[in-house]
Amino acid sequence: MTYLRNCWYLVGWVKELDEVGWFARTIAEVPLLIMRTVEGGVSALLDRCPHRFAPLSCGKITDGQITCGYHAITFAADGRCLDNPHGAAISALTVPSFAAAVGHTGIWVWIGEQALADPATIPPLDLITRTPASAGLHGYEQIAANYQLCTDNILDLSHADSLHPTSLGGGATTRAQFTVKEHPDRIELNWFAPSDVAPPALDALLPEPNNPADVYLRAIWYAPSVMAVTLGGYPAGHRERGNPETWGIHVMTPSDAGKTHYFYWAGRNCLVEDADLTAMVAVMLQAAFAGEDKPMLEAQQSRVGSTDFNALGPALLRTDEGSVRVRRRLSKLIAAEAACAEREPA
Amino acid sequence: MTYLRNCWYLVGWVKELDEVGWFARTIAEVPLLIMRTVEGGVSALLDRCPHRFAPLSCGKITDGQITCGYHAITFAADGRCLDNPHGAAISALTVPSFAAAVGHTGIWVWIGEQALADPATIPPLDLITRTPASAGLHGYEQIAANYQLCTDNILDLSHADSLHPTSLGGGATTRAQFTVKEHPDRIELNWFAPSDVAPPALDALLPEPNNPADVYLRAIWYAPSVMAVTLGGYPAGHRERGNPETWGIHVMTPSDAGKTHYFYWAGRNCLVEDADLTAMVAVMLQAAFAGEDKPMLEAQQSRVGSTDFNALGPALLRTDEGSVRVRRRLSKLIAAEAACAEREPA
Amino acid sequence: MTYLRNCWYLVGWVKELDEVGWFARTIAEVPLLIMRTVEGGVSALLDRCPHRFAPLSCGKITDGQITCGYHAITFAADGRCLDNPHGAAISALTVPSFAAAVGHTGIWVWIGEQALADPATIPPLDLITRTPASAGLHGYEQIAANYQLCTDNILDLSHADSLHPTSLGGGATTRAQFTVKEHPDRIELNWFAPSDVAPPALDALLPEPNNPADVYLRAIWYAPSVMAVTLGGYPAGHRERGNPETWGIHVMTPSDAGKTHYFYWAGRNCLVEDADLTAMVAVMLQAAFAGEDKPMLEAQQSRVGSTDFNALGPALLRTDEGSVRVRRRLSKLIAAEAACAEREPA
Ligand code: FES
Ligand code: FES
Ligand code: FES
Repeated sequence: MTYLRNCWYLVGWVKELDEVGWFARTIAEVPLLIMRTVEGGVSALLDRCPHRFAPLSCGKITDGQITCGYHAITFAADGRCLDNPHGAAISALTVPSFAAAVGHTGIWVWIGEQALADPATIPPLDLITRTPASAGLHGYEQIAANYQLCTDNILDLSHADSLHPTSLGGGATTRAQFTVKEHPDRIELNWFAPSDVAPPALDALLPEPNNPADVYLRAIWYAPSVMAVTLGGYPAGHRERGNPETWGIHVMTPSDAGKTHYFYWAGRNCLVEDADLTAMVAVMLQAAFAGEDKPMLEAQQSRVGSTDFNALGPALLRTDEGSVRVRRRLSKLIAAEAACAEREPA
Repeated sequence: MTYLRNCWYLVGWVKELDEVGWFARTIAEVPLLIMRTVEGGVSALLDRCPHRFAPLSCGKITDGQITCGYHAITFAADGRCLDNPHGAAISALTVPSFAAAVGHTGIWVWIGEQALADPATIPPLDLITRTPASAGLHGYEQIAANYQLCTDNILDLSHADSLHPTSLGGGATTRAQFTVKEHPDRIELNWFAPSDVAPPALDALLPEPNNPADVYLRAIWYAPSVMAVTLGGYPAGHRERGNPETWGIHVMTPSDAGKTHYFYWAGRNCLVEDADLTAMVAVMLQAAFAGEDKPMLEAQQSRVGSTDFNALGPALLRTDEGSVRVRRRLSKLIAAEAACAEREPA
Repeated sequence: MTYLRNCWYLVGWVKELDEVGWFARTIAEVPLLIMRTVEGGVSALLDRCPHRFAPLSCGKITDGQITCGYHAITFAADGRCLDNPHGAAISALTVPSFAAAVGHTGIWVWIGEQALADPATIPPLDLITRTPASAGLHGYEQIAANYQLCTDNILDLSHADSLHPTSLGGGATTRAQFTVKEHPDRIELNWFAPSDVAPPALDALLPEPNNPADVYLRAIWYAPSVMAVTLGGYPAGHRERGNPETWGIHVMTPSDAGKTHYFYWAGRNCLVEDADLTAMVAVMLQAAFAGEDKPMLEAQQSRVGSTDFNALGPALLRTDEGSVRVRRRLSKLIAAEAACAEREPA
């Protein structure tokens, strides 16, 4: 399928790289090898030897170099051939490389036109680094569903009331006032439920749990599939009595048309030193995302199949406005990119 | 592939529904949710929420209602929206439903033009309900082969002589006189083997086992893939000395081009109170159908692949006359339906 | 995909047949049943009953006859119908057969125009039978990669230096002088490494292991994918002091576009009575072929996918000359055959 190419895709968390030094992951049908450079930077190479196409990730990767396992040609982390035991290090022996940047504890890769890759356009998820490490958690799941179904899931957070009733739901989002606002660089969704029941994960942080709260929820979408969610609340009408907020970053990176890398991060603005609480939240979120969202999204995918979602004629509700606008915006971006590519063929 | 649509498909046995209250099954590529209505009737809905296409069978199903597991919209067993927590129960929130009828201990669904669904046209398998429950047994197998290969299997019952020699075969069918007769609503096959060896399953019921018997066998096909088989016999030339009959209903409901739901029922006219005998026959038939037919049909499918059966040029024998006529009749019915659909587009 | 058809394909080793009397194997997408004839010869039939296409290999195979498991029609090993219990043994009931010949301890089948099948054109692998049985070993692996990738593997033996460093590699092949020579019936590759380190498998056979040796290596390719490899050496500059040679036959028979039957044989000209050594070599080769080549070839296939190899633009090196010439030659042979088939339609 056709993906947006001139954009940053989150390809993994920095801590994944730190654990093993490199990893291989397919993004928008492009197999990538992500590794550390000798200078400690990060590089992204096509995970395919230019010689005879063995995956570089089947070779030996050390000290910012890769030696292909098939015929022992060695490449630098930037793709240049360092050593060809069978002749000269001709320029054809260069591994295609992609701009890679570290930002917000993640590794971002630009698979489109390389000259356009500007790290300043990585979605602004500064929240992640502004949160003390003890209050933040990182997660990753693979989902056998199209990334747009995964994005839709976060764009209608009322689903938490039915799918995650004991953790993130409870009913307030379904009852909330809901608005969608388009900005040039993002689409913002807001829910506000005055004097309602806070979702369990928020309620536990309120000064007086089990009491009416003014609950607010915000989801901001950045192209193609990055979302920042804020869930906050306070004793009904009394913001001054304490205003805990929890934050969730949800990034749905397409692997192929039917598979998605789901990266998530969660943090909060209170009890930030309580690493035990963070560990409990991590377990709760994994149960929700891997145990509740993933099976539902995969079942939904099985019913949609390879048909275009809108061609099936979904019964769109007010709660789908975020998804409708995001899908429309993304389609336009992809179409514009395709039109552009046609005018200037490679 | 193209299926006959204006016909009744057996989708399950009533007893399957009674055990669990509902089940999901795909018929002719249409995913169905079969459930009880509050009035105790049976309904068949498209197993796909009209909102965003989650399978309804992933939701909560109780008291003749389904609450979708994704966003908690509730539907009645007839598909109407009963409750939409996110707004009005607009008519777009209606689950497509299909005529469903109970007949002959089975549940039949009509996936074609709903106005044409008339339970009076369910194939006449009254034998099932006329047989005491103690003498009848129900079975179900999934077969990874096209339903027409499964129908062919029953349309040439001489296969039992080679594939089921210790239970349903023995040689008499191969030696029998064989005739095929077309009727407007069915195709009837008859085999008669005078003074021959009765198949083991029949022989055990004869007044004098292990003696020459006049053996008769009849298979009646109803479109698209329902078959009623009678196997009977009596001491050679002496019908008055006892005439046991065993009956088999074989229904091959297509799931998709390469998968078939095989429903079967078996009964008899003698020793009808002997439930132990019935249990023994059930074991024998399962061994034959699951252990002998299924692997053969799946192996045959692997050789046919997605090629049209006739295009491969089978060497047709006299014994294939039933299959040839049935395939020809069914092709005509499907072609007529397609022509009709073209004239009156939906 | 399109395969060369007018050529001999190795379909199995004679010893495989001797162990079980028959086997089924798919060659170039043609499912074959290989069996002994009553005269002790070998026959190759299409593994598909002409009646209704059950695999013959699902039937009963004894005494040079096959009785189909579905409706008990019996065929001779040459494909003629011997018995049809349902009528006459009409000529339509003939199983397509293919020329089969035993040669070099293998069974070779010709799936193309049968009139052209001449056993004299089986590639000259006489080495196999000239080697005492105690010094020869036979192997077989299935590889989930296109057969041409498997052929390429042997056509650049320098891969052993990186992929099999402890057995077949060591570095000499990479450093060797390398020449490729085309002949009308074969393509010959030669490597010569004067005063170098012999690969471990050869070094052990040299009069003075661990000393500089003149190492030579030859690979001869016969269409479509048969290769004979010789690895020999002697104390540097002193051929008269002993000249052990090891031989490898590598036959890559396509099963389908993404699967290959890899048959191999290995022998040597010294210590030929030492069956224990042969057994050790068998273990070493299986470790190399199944444990090192197979995963690499399958990983390479995963990156190539269904795209044409050359269309991906490999960076061709001097060491790829064998592969380039072989692929070019084979393409021409296949194109010529296709052109010929067009002129004389069947
Ligand atoms: S395929 Fe990588 S070195 Fe040859
Ligand atoms: S998909 Fe069923 S309620 Fe939304
Ligand atoms: S399919 Fe082989 S005998 Fe009928």
